[in-house]
Amino acid sequence: SPPPPPPLSPGPRSGYITVGYRGSSTIGRDCQADAKFRRVARITVCGKTALAKEVFGETLNESRDPDRPPERYTSRYYLKFNFLEQAFDLLAEAGFHMLACSSTGTCAYASDQGEDKIWTSYTEYVFSRG
Amino acid sequence: SPPPPPPLSPGPRSGYITVGYRGSSTIGRDCQADAKFRRVARITVCGKTALAKEVFGETLNESRDPDRPPERYTSRYYLKFNFLEQAFDLLAEAGFHMLACSSTGTCAYASDQGEDKIWTSYTEYVFSRG
Amino acid sequence: SPPPPPPLSPGPRSGYITVGYRGSSTIGRDCQADAKFRRVARITVCGKTALAKEVFGETLNESRDPDRPPERYTSRYYLKFNFLEQAFDLLAEAGFHMLACSSTGTCAYASDQGEDKIWTSYTEYVFSRG
Amino acid sequence: SPPPPPPLSPGPRSGYITVGYRGSSTIGRDCQADAKFRRVARITVCGKTALAKEVFGETLNESRDPDRPPERYTSRYYLKFNFLEQAFDLLAEAGFHMLACSSTGTCAYASDQGEDKIWTSYTEYVFSRG
Amino acid sequence: SPPPPPPLSPGPRSGYITVGYRGSSTIGRDCQADAKFRRVARITVCGKTALAKEVFGETLNESRDPDRPPERYTSRYYLKFNFLEQAFDLLAEAGFHMLACSSTGTCAYASDQGEDKIWTSYTEYVFSRG
Repeated sequence: SPPPPPPLSPGPRSGYITVGYRGSSTIGRDCQADAKFRRVARITVCGKTALAKEVFGETLNESRDPDRPPERYTSRYYLKFNFLEQAFDLLAEAGFHMLACSSTGTCAYASDQGEDKIWTSYTEYVFSRG
Repeated sequence: SPPPPPPLSPGPRSGYITVGYRGSSTIGRDCQADAKFRRVARITVCGKTALAKEVFGETLNESRDPDRPPERYTSRYYLKFNFLEQAFDLLAEAGFHMLACSSTGTCAYASDQGEDKIWTSYTEYVFSRG
Repeated sequence: SPPPPPPLSPGPRSGYITVGYRGSSTIGRDCQADAKFRRVARITVCGKTALAKEVFGETLNESRDPDRPPERYTSRYYLKFNFLEQAFDLLAEAGFHMLACSSTGTCAYASDQGEDKIWTSYTEYVFSRG
Repeated sequence: SPPPPPPLSPGPRSGYITVGYRGSSTIGRDCQADAKFRRVARITVCGKTALAKEVFGETLNESRDPDRPPERYTSRYYLKFNFLEQAFDLLAEAGFHMLACSSTGTCAYASDQGEDKIWTSYTEYVFSRG
Repeated sequence: SPPPPPPLSPGPRSGYITVGYRGSSTIGRDCQADAKFRRVARITVCGKTALAKEVFGETLNESRDPDRPPERYTSRYYLKFNFLEQAFDLLAEAGFHMLACSSTGTCAYASDQGEDKIWTSYTEYVFSRG
């Protein structure tokens, strides 16, 4: 008789993955002209490396934390695209659902001339499966 | 025999849509007189373009990201109305439910005369279907 | 035979209602003496006007957005009481449940004498039914 | 035959309770040495007074809002202990579950000598039953 | 006949555990060069001591709140590792699920030379079981 089929996934099934981004924008006197749209410079991925690779595949950039064993955790992966909803959809296709999100921000710098303020924020979205 | 009926939706059924707004208000010495009501200048829509069009239809303004293929993602659509709950209700009618929301804010500018501060915030609401 | 009974609700059953408040407090050198309790100056109500009226009834103040048709949306209603949990309980009695909340805050003003800072915040709670 | 047993609870069964705390900390040049642990000076309790008394019993301090009728609301009760999870566990034992939490913070004061900043925050956790 | 099996857990089954971290980063003119990745210096653990020990075992550092009885609460435990998702996964393995998270942040210090700002934030994740 044939051998039993392999398990559906060779890696762990359950776990948490957090995706986030750090935004920044310069706000000066022309604040009113500031574009109103969300700006995502880079989507970071935190969690077990095997899960991140399973979910994001070729769209995952591991260059900032290379050669990480599959059972280890990372907080230095990021994605090759910048659309958060694309990341959410890939997570949903892999069976993950969003549990919570949070955001924190502050103004970071005021030049002597009072012209510029840089507003940085960090927003993250926590997903789990299983 | 008749052909089988077409699928219920020509586009993807599942996915994430995020709606958000960036608020700003000038706060000076007359802070106490500042109106207490929420001010939404523009509701932005992020996600797969086909989903956004399905949900918001004629109320969607695509002028800042035109000619986007249906399977691509956008973060530059916005709505022609300014009531968040109207957007939520349209999302609910299309089968989406809210998963989470987050908000971040900071003061952005102080003039030399100390008269004005501009407080900007960004609040977003994450929805999914399927 | 008697006519059939009217539908349970003359208005729409499903929908979103958001309640929120903008807080402010003066923080000076006597910060340690500042009371620790939540201060809610005014609870605002956003959503479809018919839903808001159904939920809050006589406790709803419509003076800032009068004569609004029942199918229109408002963000300028507010409540005649200042206890958030009373608003939550009225929403629960009408079949609404809380989905999410978010909060954002910043310091708003520094006088020349450096005595005072006014801290403003905006917190909102999103409810839905159906 | 004997009379039917009284209802399980003499007070209302359903309702919302919000617990929160206002934190503050002085942050100077020795910021790096600042302890990393959460500091909760006082846990406040908001909601219907009968519910708060049922859940927290002897651990409730009502001195800032005494003689409140059971069907009235309060935002000035607080707890005699300072562990948030102890409050959460008492709420869970009484059948309440957490719906959402939010947090807001800002720096509140800079002395002329630039030595001190006081960071205040307000964090709250919303629970419901029924 | 054999003795009855012991209860599934010698300690309490239900309860809340909150994990959090206080982040800080120096933001100067080179803000653009600032790394985009989440930095977690220390993960703190709050809740009943017996639950924390059951979930985190050998990875729990109790040195800042030693000799705490099992039924008491602590807010001064922390973890020996710095990956939030590893903490989330351990909590999930013990039957806990995330209920909510919140985050608050502010700029904390500006030197006289205007070179540095230290941005501190506190983010926490609330879990429960049972």
